[in-house]
Amino acid sequence: MDNVFSKERFLTSLNACKSYKSLDATLLAERLSELAEIGRTKQGGISRLVYTAEEKQAKQRLTKWLEELGLVVREDAIGNLLALYEGENPELPVVMTGSHLDTVPNGGAFDGALGVLSSLTAIEGLIKEGKRPKRSIELVVFVDEEGTRFKNGIFGSRVMMGEVTYDDLLRFEDEEGIKLVDAIKEQGLFPEKIKETHYPKENIHAFVELHIEQGKILEENQEKIGIVKGIAGPSWHSFTFVGETDHAGNTPMTHRKDSVAAAAELILAVEQIPPKVSKTAVATVGKMNVHPNGSNVIAGETTITVDARDIDEDLREQMNRQIINAANKIAEKRGLSLEHKTEITIPPVLAPQAIQDAIKHASEALKLPYRYVISGAGHDAMILGKYVPSGMIFVPSVNGKSHSPEEFTHLDDCLDGIAVLKETLYELANQ
Amino acid sequence: MDNVFSKERFLTSLNACKSYKSLDATLLAERLSELAEIGRTKQGGISRLVYTAEEKQAKQRLTKWLEELGLVVREDAIGNLLALYEGENPELPVVMTGSHLDTVPNGGAFDGALGVLSSLTAIEGLIKEGKRPKRSIELVVFVDEEGTRFKNGIFGSRVMMGEVTYDDLLRFEDEEGIKLVDAIKEQGLFPEKIKETHYPKENIHAFVELHIEQGKILEENQEKIGIVKGIAGPSWHSFTFVGETDHAGNTPMTHRKDSVAAAAELILAVEQIPPKVSKTAVATVGKMNVHPNGSNVIAGETTITVDARDIDEDLREQMNRQIINAANKIAEKRGLSLEHKTEITIPPVLAPQAIQDAIKHASEALKLPYRYVISGAGHDAMILGKYVPSGMIFVPSVNGKSHSPEEFTHLDDCLDGIAVLKETLYELANQ
Repeated sequence: MDNVFSKERFLTSLNACKSYKSLDATLLAERLSELAEIGRTKQGGISRLVYTAEEKQAKQRLTKWLEELGLVVREDAIGNLLALYEGENPELPVVMTGSHLDTVPNGGAFDGALGVLSSLTAIEGLIKEGKRPKRSIELVVFVDEEGTRFKNGIFGSRVMMGEVTYDDLLRFEDEEGIKLVDAIKEQGLFPEKIKETHYPKENIHAFVELHIEQGKILEENQEKIGIVKGIAGPSWHSFTFVGETDHAGNTPMTHRKDSVAAAAELILAVEQIPPKVSKTAVATVGKMNVHPNGSNVIAGETTITVDARDIDEDLREQMNRQIINAANKIAEKRGLSLEHKTEITIPPVLAPQAIQDAIKHASEALKLPYRYVISGAGHDAMILGKYVPSGMIFVPSVNGKSHSPEEFTHLDDCLDGIAVLKETLYELANQ
Repeated sequence: MDNVFSKERFLTSLNACKSYKSLDATLLAERLSELAEIGRTKQGGISRLVYTAEEKQAKQRLTKWLEELGLVVREDAIGNLLALYEGENPELPVVMTGSHLDTVPNGGAFDGALGVLSSLTAIEGLIKEGKRPKRSIELVVFVDEEGTRFKNGIFGSRVMMGEVTYDDLLRFEDEEGIKLVDAIKEQGLFPEKIKETHYPKENIHAFVELHIEQGKILEENQEKIGIVKGIAGPSWHSFTFVGETDHAGNTPMTHRKDSVAAAAELILAVEQIPPKVSKTAVATVGKMNVHPNGSNVIAGETTITVDARDIDEDLREQMNRQIINAANKIAEKRGLSLEHKTEITIPPVLAPQAIQDAIKHASEALKLPYRYVISGAGHDAMILGKYVPSGMIFVPSVNGKSHSPEEFTHLDDCLDGIAVLKETLYELANQ
């Protein structure tokens, strides 16, 4: 189990940590380890799904730490946590910062939790330094970022931004048939008061989230800070080729309408298209269903899902059109029918220059090598970014691993990221 | 339900039937319809799995018809049925003919059942005509040709040829956990006496099975009789590409080890290789499993099964080597690892010229257009053919459909096939 999270492994790089006078690396390691014990799995991962005892325990632990800092913590009607570090002019729009505490099943110790602890540690650092900015800084923990349990991710931020109605809630239940509204009520919360969770957008000056990269670019380039230029919202398309189910032995090669072969052609086309569109575009076939899926049967029906992303919406749509064209041509050439569905379309979100600059200033001041990156993964910042200026700071992921017990970021890299976050928040809160 | 079997639909072509004085088309339609009612499904198909009440009922119905013909019917220890039409020299090796009465789930009315009724009707015709050949003709019904229930097909013929031991039986159970031996015992049979089922191979002069083509070649060429030159035994290979599970959004196209894309390349290669090897070679990817199979995850592991067939074993192995080479090259080029397993290798079986000639003579005498074909599907004749001279007669399948409720062969085509079978059996039994 050397490749999973442990406090000992995390502390290995304690001596490599730069000395930031108000940031306590040992305390950070202590707190991340405490959270990692809540929902720990046999495989060394973390299962802390939304609206479970484990998630509640993690929120309670965080609440205790925030209250020890002297902050007042409130929980909204669906479970988002908020804690205000009051600025000199509390009537000004706040700078918000935070992430989430839920995980995917058997996920890692850093995704979400590191972001929340970074915000806590940054605020703690400002308090220790006696620095009170003009604007208040508000820590937030969004519920259900991952969305595994109810197939309904980045939930807390969508609710807070007013995108979800009570009727929407009624449509979701988990695999055991527990309704989302009942799961919320079981936590002592009030789904029927969902409107009270809406956060007035004009009261937010900026939002900043620190997150692990979940990719390998920073690590490969030995850079410490990723300044996120934008979040590449995903679009999902499903393509179903319908051919003819025939006997694999009795059907000559020339007489086939093979849906698997058609899907294979599209998979290879999907791999070729993104580099033609932009350097940042990606497209993936990760899911396919073959029917009837028998060794000796030419499959009559095959469905694949294409996940296509870019930070530029026009380029993403250009990529989608090329993929759809390729699919139609393949179907036509092979004499198969094709069903195409657009499953999800989330617009990409760009980080405003002012927020990118604040992160850049902090990185430069701290002499940390940085790189402009895009986030291919969705985050709560993608939702907030639709309404208020939002940005993200990435820290390196060892081997790019995420959503797995192997997810890891070195302690010194975490601390560097927090130092950048602290200065970024301070700059934004003094604007 | 116009496209499934019904007695009315079958009788539509009664007037198109040629007049064969000893063959009763109406009686054939009556009997096939009676069998089709046993295990009939809502979708219009037939579910008559081995060692069930339905299969037993079908065997009992057949036994009644055979006894009405004056034949003595015996059932061996695992349920194969045998009925002897005694020739003038009963001590000579017999000519055996027959097929099976079990079906796949929701299968058709013809696969197996038509073969059995053809053998019955042919013997009935010889009796009516007062023709008693030198050799005895023995009708056989093999149990469990399909193998769906216990994943253990062409079972009855393998047992009869001595390929299965009692210990082998103990390894199989169905999806409900019922052991094969217990299922056999429940039918009042005696799996422990499996050795008593062995049929002395030297006592078989020839074996002939009539079967629907399960392909479209006869129909497309408006030919009535397929003279099977050989049965292309299947070989099954599984290929597992192991790459890296990564986030579909955060992993640039250049940094991927995508097992789905590798599998797609192999699928297209598998489609290209057979025509380079021979005109009769076929290869199919009908089954694939993608792990973890999530829309937004680059799949770390994908397994595909390749079913490759030809009637020439050397050419088939040449095809397999080309497929394995292609898989290795793809894995190497993409930096993935590859696991290759040979799952099944059944040798192709060729029909002896003498049997092909007997079928040809009968077709010519009856002025029925015939074509030499190969069987891509496996049959009990493939097992018997390893030990005794064996051949098959194919009749046209409407639209090539099989193993489905849509399986259909016109009554006049059935009758033509039976006429050829009768003459073929008579010629072989007089050798």
